[in-house]
Amino acid sequence: MAVYTDVSPEELEAFLATYDLGRLRAFKGIAEGVENSNYLLQTEAGSFILTLYEKRVNPADLPFFVGLMEHLATRGIDCPQPVRNREGIALGTLAGRPALIATFLLGTSVRRPTAANCAALGAALAGLHKAGADFTALHRANALSVAGWRPLYEQARDRADIVSPGLSTLIADELSVLEARWPAGLPAGVIHADLFPDNVFFTDGRLSGLIDFYFGCNDLLAYDVAICLNAWCFEPDGAFNQTKGRALLAAYQAERPLGADEIAALPLLARGAALRFLLTRLVDWLNVPPGALVRPHDPLEYLRKLRFHRSVTSPRDYGISEGTAA
Amino acid sequence: MAVYTDVSPEELEAFLATYDLGRLRAFKGIAEGVENSNYLLQTEAGSFILTLYEKRVNPADLPFFVGLMEHLATRGIDCPQPVRNREGIALGTLAGRPALIATFLLGTSVRRPTAANCAALGAALAGLHKAGADFTALHRANALSVAGWRPLYEQARDRADIVSPGLSTLIADELSVLEARWPAGLPAGVIHADLFPDNVFFTDGRLSGLIDFYFGCNDLLAYDVAICLNAWCFEPDGAFNQTKGRALLAAYQAERPLGADEIAALPLLARGAALRFLLTRLVDWLNVPPGALVRPHDPLEYLRKLRFHRSVTSPRDYGISEGTAA
Repeated sequence: MAVYTDVSPEELEAFLATYDLGRLRAFKGIAEGVENSNYLLQTEAGSFILTLYEKRVNPADLPFFVGLMEHLATRGIDCPQPVRNREGIALGTLAGRPALIATFLLGTSVRRPTAANCAALGAALAGLHKAGADFTALHRANALSVAGWRPLYEQARDRADIVSPGLSTLIADELSVLEARWPAGLPAGVIHADLFPDNVFFTDGRLSGLIDFYFGCNDLLAYDVAICLNAWCFEPDGAFNQTKGRALLAAYQAERPLGADEIAALPLLARGAALRFLLTRLVDWLNVPPGALVRPHDPLEYLRKLRFHRSVTSPRDYGISEGTAA
Repeated sequence: MAVYTDVSPEELEAFLATYDLGRLRAFKGIAEGVENSNYLLQTEAGSFILTLYEKRVNPADLPFFVGLMEHLATRGIDCPQPVRNREGIALGTLAGRPALIATFLLGTSVRRPTAANCAALGAALAGLHKAGADFTALHRANALSVAGWRPLYEQARDRADIVSPGLSTLIADELSVLEARWPAGLPAGVIHADLFPDNVFFTDGRLSGLIDFYFGCNDLLAYDVAICLNAWCFEPDGAFNQTKGRALLAAYQAERPLGADEIAALPLLARGAALRFLLTRLVDWLNVPPGALVRPHDPLEYLRKLRFHRSVTSPRDYGISEGTAA
């Protein structure tokens, strides 16, 4: 939940007056996203989401995020579309923060994805990768890919064993392997990099939208697939559900066939994706102020996933047939 | 901001299936209210607020709140209207909590009320008191009236001086005066008891709705007026704005003239109202867990207001003319 910056209705009315959205009808802080403050706006023109970008977001990245959402919307991807003001500018300033109004997307996220949900997600992910292919005007490196993991580890190494005995050594070993073997030369492009179930909306069982592009960046496309295998295909008891993996991968490949090199790299990419979320959750977990009302995500969920990926002997364990390579 | 209980879309869909509201279209936790969890629902039938009642609410009080909102809506008061399910029941259970779906009220609250806003509030408050007059099916005593203040003081007395030197003695003295002189025999009925600016919606400058009836109870009507004088008519610098007081009181009296006894009691009732919010804020302030993300309201704001009311020598200081008594 996230409303870090308080906006008065009076300030908002003045801000809205620079847009062609009519008068304000309702205005509520909403519990969505963890990095920024989000408000639901209802105006005479409809429903919108107002986002105020908080300190963890680098203002220099905002044009990339806004440009990406605009680009994807023109390519037919169902995602929030930035609204420009009367001067044609999307990014404004409100309550001392960079601020964006975007269209409101109908739909609800699923908590326990079914195999059908995973298939829909796989197809949408491939569609996103294809639609992003010609978004070349701006570039954003992935600060949370392999080069970014060791600095995170340094923040957590001394206290990691508080969370789980032996965790510090396990991460150090894993880091060495991944840094040495991380694939180069796989197809790259724009990735979402955080396409968890809460960022995907469904309406009547049909995937109706993707949100939260604030980890979007340029990186290996198959790494995005590996992130989704982690986020969508494990059961609450920690078991990988191969039926869901197969559904996700087959639907992805129907839209964008993976190369043999991408398929071969999947187990390693999946280890990397698990380590990335293990590390960021671990750092957050170790830095919660005592008594805080927001409980961070459990890092151990991703330790279990990492252990599964280390046990994988072939991409077939994810439900992919190597014969399906393009 | 408040989303204490997490509801999965799957649970919500099952709950909604017992209502005639069509299918779920969107669902977001909202930052409204401090006692309960609130969600915005959009269904095929429109927009609604889902409230889950948390532990600070006594389930035995819920029929009073729901009955009151239903009663007021039938009397033409713009307030959230409880939605009954197909079995005709308004209060359900969701995620282990008592749950209510109510209609969504358009409008936005004001942060810095103008005199015109105060006049609109005064008229609406009188309208509420008149509309509540025949809500006699249920009764709820005001746990936060004069008899409830000493127990609050006992929770805070030993540490009150941390917040402001001498505060503990000041409150003890004030309590003795108020307990001895609290008026009996003034007109009583249903009061809102928490009609702060964030619980009043305006649309295009017109008052369009009242929300949050969860302090609603039976008590002195003029005490509700005194609460509103405290909440609406002080400036950010702590000064009482007599123009706003006059606007509020005149508009109230145009709908429901105050008796001479009510007018004479106003300074004492205003002291009591200031002490009530001073005490609850003080207890909250002294009980914040270290590092908590929610900062409670400043108790000293109400200490300043209390000091003003102690300096008042006549009801005229609030902007009322004693000649206007009914």
